[in-house]
Amino acid sequence: MCNKLMDMDHMELSKDSRYRIGIDLGGTKIKLGVVDENNEIVDRMSIPTLVNRSYQEIIQSMAEGVITLLEGTDINLKQCDFLGIGSPGVIDGKTGTVVYSNNFAWENIPVVEELQKYIDLPMYISNDANCAVLGEAAAGAATDCDNIVLLTLGTGIGSGIILNGKLFEGSNIGGSEYGHSVLVVDGEQCTCGRRGCFEAYASATALIRETKKAAKRNENSILHLLCGSDLTKVCGVTPFKAMEYGDPSAKEVIDNYIKYLGNGIINLINLFRPDKVLISGGICNQGDNLLKPVNDYVAKHCFGGSYTYIPAIIKAALGNTAGIIGAASLQNYLYIEQDVSM
Amino acid sequence: MCNKLMDMDHMELSKDSRYRIGIDLGGTKIKLGVVDENNEIVDRMSIPTLVNRSYQEIIQSMAEGVITLLEGTDINLKQCDFLGIGSPGVIDGKTGTVVYSNNFAWENIPVVEELQKYIDLPMYISNDANCAVLGEAAAGAATDCDNIVLLTLGTGIGSGIILNGKLFEGSNIGGSEYGHSVLVVDGEQCTCGRRGCFEAYASATALIRETKKAAKRNENSILHLLCGSDLTKVCGVTPFKAMEYGDPSAKEVIDNYIKYLGNGIINLINLFRPDKVLISGGICNQGDNLLKPVNDYVAKHCFGGSYTYIPAIIKAALGNTAGIIGAASLQNYLYIEQDVSM
Repeated sequence: MCNKLMDMDHMELSKDSRYRIGIDLGGTKIKLGVVDENNEIVDRMSIPTLVNRSYQEIIQSMAEGVITLLEGTDINLKQCDFLGIGSPGVIDGKTGTVVYSNNFAWENIPVVEELQKYIDLPMYISNDANCAVLGEAAAGAATDCDNIVLLTLGTGIGSGIILNGKLFEGSNIGGSEYGHSVLVVDGEQCTCGRRGCFEAYASATALIRETKKAAKRNENSILHLLCGSDLTKVCGVTPFKAMEYGDPSAKEVIDNYIKYLGNGIINLINLFRPDKVLISGGICNQGDNLLKPVNDYVAKHCFGGSYTYIPAIIKAALGNTAGIIGAASLQNYLYIEQDVSM
Repeated sequence: MCNKLMDMDHMELSKDSRYRIGIDLGGTKIKLGVVDENNEIVDRMSIPTLVNRSYQEIIQSMAEGVITLLEGTDINLKQCDFLGIGSPGVIDGKTGTVVYSNNFAWENIPVVEELQKYIDLPMYISNDANCAVLGEAAAGAATDCDNIVLLTLGTGIGSGIILNGKLFEGSNIGGSEYGHSVLVVDGEQCTCGRRGCFEAYASATALIRETKKAAKRNENSILHLLCGSDLTKVCGVTPFKAMEYGDPSAKEVIDNYIKYLGNGIINLINLFRPDKVLISGGICNQGDNLLKPVNDYVAKHCFGGSYTYIPAIIKAALGNTAGIIGAASLQNYLYIEQDVSM
């Protein structure tokens, strides 16, 4: 009897709890999660994006995913305060639109309006790297900071910026886009059509490209041996492993990578002087092999040197779930208020 | 009788008016001004800095300048709300200190504390380029905007950023310093000791350097003729003039300058997407010869192109007085509150 009462109390408490839904829309997968007041994911799932479908079909899948996810928990829509979406591309948060996304070949897609046909909740949308930094601020490696820069080092480079505890998306559409800042005028070809972007030097793709070049140049190197003379097998780990074995050509690749990544981070620090810089992506699994030389390089070359504040560069903590938690945190962190009355 | 009454009324009104004092501390001159509620300079003066003196002597001169300036007006110290200072170098506004200034060879100089020995007013201090952007926002070319980036193109490059109507100095000491963002890794030598900074490509100094190189390479060029074969006579105007006369080597110099300046501005736009970008410095007197190609270059190469907001790049309006008006506007625009209770 006593136990039963306690259970009922617990149920009552649970019904009073508030939740948010976070969606991390990616080119391959749509990740969905329900997040509680402690910024913990109560339940999550992922569904294939099937990116060649119409936007209406993709957004219908998102809606069905949300409904399926909630059905699997004791949580109903009325217990959810809002739904947040992280999407690749240039976003107009005020109108709930993906203005442009290369990955999806989307132009001016009214994502929020379309999703609200299925789900009656206030909705927010922002860029996926913006959501990643929000996730880290809410529940990851930067819960103790109000000023954070995050770089996602993957196929490309995404950037998210928090200033004074609020997400900074730029003052007008198309801001907080650091991957395509030019680091070498007339430099390496970038996927965006221009030359010399930070992304073309410091993404995992760029590291792999330079590793392949070095392996090709040095046919007797450990680098070349490690991929069994098959350059298509080179990945982001290859140069680090070869360097551990003492391969000088691998060390040169890594040293150059550190220089470009370091310069890109220094440029951001000279402008924003954040409390911390977070980096995420598979390459960060190299831990101190990557982080120590990058921190050393940045400390040595930041403008103003020891007279100024030099933030630590650390690994992001949340991995794949940062985007969900961040999307589910959009309401609390917005710098410019979004109009959700659509 | 009627006239006299009106005059007295006017006098009364004038005594109720409030003023601020702005000081623009430069390596050659200290410019001082009294600014009224309409952000107009009531009176101003300038005194030599004599930079090799001790900081105590320089600051004593600043104080004497303020007292002399006020004596020349009907305004007394009690009618002044505060005093603002713009200074070169890395500033700690919270403690009122110039943390580091290369021009003055200053390290941790307590400017506000020292000046308050002479003048009993609340005081604010910020970097000189920050004050320039505040001046333009208060009374210059950007009174209609809340999000502004300003670049001062002179011997070096200074940068000032206003976000949501507030001065953004970076979240910790040493921010908003764009002149030393690297635009070409391993590029031209910069005065800061590093290589490839924006300043080393887009300052007036850089334009003069490249003009001299081109004149030397092309001894029969109009460029070479214009300086009477004396390369020390090359100034920022020389390549523009030679280009007007149809000199292809001068056009190449200007085209390159536009490319580097344009790329630097694009990097800032990709991050901040301000309402406007202002540029100042003698080189801006070239008007459309400079502004048109820069605007064209930026519009063509900004990330996201026409999907995004591309701000106009315009000439700053206030010239030499921006620093005074901006320093006298520091209180109204501070992003992070400064502690003036010292």
